Amino acid sequence: MSATEQTTSLSLPALQPPRRFLFGPGPTMVDPRVYQALSKPIVGHLDSYFIQVMGDVQQLVKMAYGTTDGATLVISGTGSAGMEAAVANFVEPGAKLAIFANGYFSDRLTDMAKRQGANVVRFEKSWGETFSDSEAADFIKREKPAVVGFVHAETSTGALQAGKAICAAAHEAGALVIGDCVTSLGGLPVEFDKTGIDIAYSCTQKGLSCPPGLSPIAMSPRAMEYLAARTTPSRSWYLDLKLIRDYSTVSHRYHHTAPISMFYALREALMVIAEEGIENRWERHRRCHRAFVKGIEAMGLRMYVPEAHRITTLNTVCVPEGVDEARVRKGLLEGPGIEIAGGFGPLAGKVFRIGVMGPLATEDNVQFFLSEFKKVLSAEGHSL
Amino acid sequence: MSATEQTTSLSLPALQPPRRFLFGPGPTMVDPRVYQALSKPIVGHLDSYFIQVMGDVQQLVKMAYGTTDGATLVISGTGSAGMEAAVANFVEPGAKLAIFANGYFSDRLTDMAKRQGANVVRFEKSWGETFSDSEAADFIKREKPAVVGFVHAETSTGALQAGKAICAAAHEAGALVIGDCVTSLGGLPVEFDKTGIDIAYSCTQKGLSCPPGLSPIAMSPRAMEYLAARTTPSRSWYLDLKLIRDYSTVSHRYHHTAPISMFYALREALMVIAEEGIENRWERHRRCHRAFVKGIEAMGLRMYVPEAHRITTLNTVCVPEGVDEARVRKGLLEGPGIEIAGGFGPLAGKVFRIGVMGPLATEDNVQFFLSEFKKVLSAEGHSL
Repeated sequence: MSATEQTTSLSLPALQPPRRFLFGPGPTMVDPRVYQALSKPIVGHLDSYFIQVMGDVQQLVKMAYGTTDGATLVISGTGSAGMEAAVANFVEPGAKLAIFANGYFSDRLTDMAKRQGANVVRFEKSWGETFSDSEAADFIKREKPAVVGFVHAETSTGALQAGKAICAAAHEAGALVIGDCVTSLGGLPVEFDKTGIDIAYSCTQKGLSCPPGLSPIAMSPRAMEYLAARTTPSRSWYLDLKLIRDYSTVSHRYHHTAPISMFYALREALMVIAEEGIENRWERHRRCHRAFVKGIEAMGLRMYVPEAHRITTLNTVCVPEGVDEARVRKGLLEGPGIEIAGGFGPLAGKVFRIGVMGPLATEDNVQFFLSEFKKVLSAEGHSL
Repeated sequence: MSATEQTTSLSLPALQPPRRFLFGPGPTMVDPRVYQALSKPIVGHLDSYFIQVMGDVQQLVKMAYGTTDGATLVISGTGSAGMEAAVANFVEPGAKLAIFANGYFSDRLTDMAKRQGANVVRFEKSWGETFSDSEAADFIKREKPAVVGFVHAETSTGALQAGKAICAAAHEAGALVIGDCVTSLGGLPVEFDKTGIDIAYSCTQKGLSCPPGLSPIAMSPRAMEYLAARTTPSRSWYLDLKLIRDYSTVSHRYHHTAPISMFYALREALMVIAEEGIENRWERHRRCHRAFVKGIEAMGLRMYVPEAHRITTLNTVCVPEGVDEARVRKGLLEGPGIEIAGGFGPLAGKVFRIGVMGPLATEDNVQFFLSEFKKVLSAEGHSL
């Protein structure tokens, strides 16, 4: 078959995505301004205009992370690429990495670190549980790791892990701390400097309400010193933060061709946040979370995570006895076009994962969701 | 400084990229339809609509590569991520990789492979030279590598390396072949099946005329068998092609959150190509290349690469004696807003790299470029 024949056989319909209300754990809804930014004409990746855009984004990412001391970079890959960049640059082969393991993303961190040759030790708890300050300190004191890894907001469970005690104990032991902020950045306080995280990574499609495709990273002065002093090359060239930093901030020396349009989008998404004010944004998400929980409990349903440890942007709701969660999700998607997620791993069939983030985090949208959710649960025969 | 104070201090101008004519080696100009696709509302990364979009893109990528036997995937990173994926999945630590080295991108491939623990042997030539069929066969016969790597269209030099003899010799020696098609895919024939490449990677921002951010990959049945039989995990989780294939084609099991908007854009860019017809597109680029060379030679300038080995989408023009190439590039950018690139490494100051690709590959645009180029060279005191 010649190339011409192949071409002719490919008659595809025009791109026409369905309208969805993205109430899942991410991607979330995107502000129309961000879509406009995406469609602006590109310039070259070494154009002084693009260099300026990268610089603006770095400044805005500092604001979102809450860091003035740290340095920020943006990786040309999704949040998972950010995770791999953290591991590839800060966990050298043979180094001991102590992981607080209480959900899917700490397992992913474990997998990546093992592939990079790390010596991984894990403090394991059931999915959804969290670690107390003294448990965290004891584990680190006992293990004396080179690096500590924890997931700030665990997307698979809805549980928030406080980082301050982990970071304090790690620093006392001379260890660096990697904090997974994929589901927290932009929606709730990370407070990078105050918490004491050394390397944080996130994504664009959750709290920042931008399409997926980039990973904003923050590094403490301690992390930067480590990186500068490291003599062995990272196993990954694409995620080598020394080279990416050179391209992004210092010499602007070519490393790779950055995704120009995605940087435009991220700049705009961060501008939207800066204009609202990051603290106002956190408070808006907190308010919607409270309204959401109130509505859920009024229906007689239960939240999976205890009140003190909930992620305010991502709610895990227990699936009521006798209800088929997959059918509920299907009903919501095929009816009002609402996307939510189910649980997986040990939480498969047991929880709904419902995000109330970004443009959807308004009281009207919470009430809209609750009312549609109630309808579908009732249609599935659950008495509310 | 509180987060609120930080916010207030960030008053940035609205995003307003300057108008550029992208006559560099990439990124190139983008069809307005592709910008429209970029700004369509996103759906979830596991939504059946997105699964369909991924499937469409895989089919269209097959058309661009010229493969019916092979499998295609799209990596959520730029062309360099595609290169690293090829290495991380097909060159196991300790395996012998034989590289045809005649430009910057074969050096990058070398660097990546060494970081992944490969035993790299190189056949080195000066930048811009190419390898004859018999040289290629002798090298492979002598080295008996597990994998062979070559750069089809070398962006740093403008030289095209024929792949057929390399692939034949490699297969005779039982080796897999990695072909870098970053600058060839979509603009000139790769003919993946006919050439016999086993693993090819490319980017979106050159011959496909889409913004940068994704890397289309093709794998031969031989490569797929190798991958299925491989028992050690790839050192990269993010670029693990077994996991990416599972997400993209088979079970649609979650791996990472794909850059939805970029997939929309790539689908549209490939539709534009399919509508033109890939062979018509190659011919259009060939025609513009001939017009370009004719104009360049009429000015008394010389092409850097011998006629038989030129990339038809990316021209390297020798900088005339006494001309400061950086000033010429500056004049083009600041005057008519034309971006071209200079040489680097051993070609620094010696060549201009001028792409005539995608929407810019029309005879009018070639004449527009030549006329502006002539003006700036004259202003720089070069008599034409």
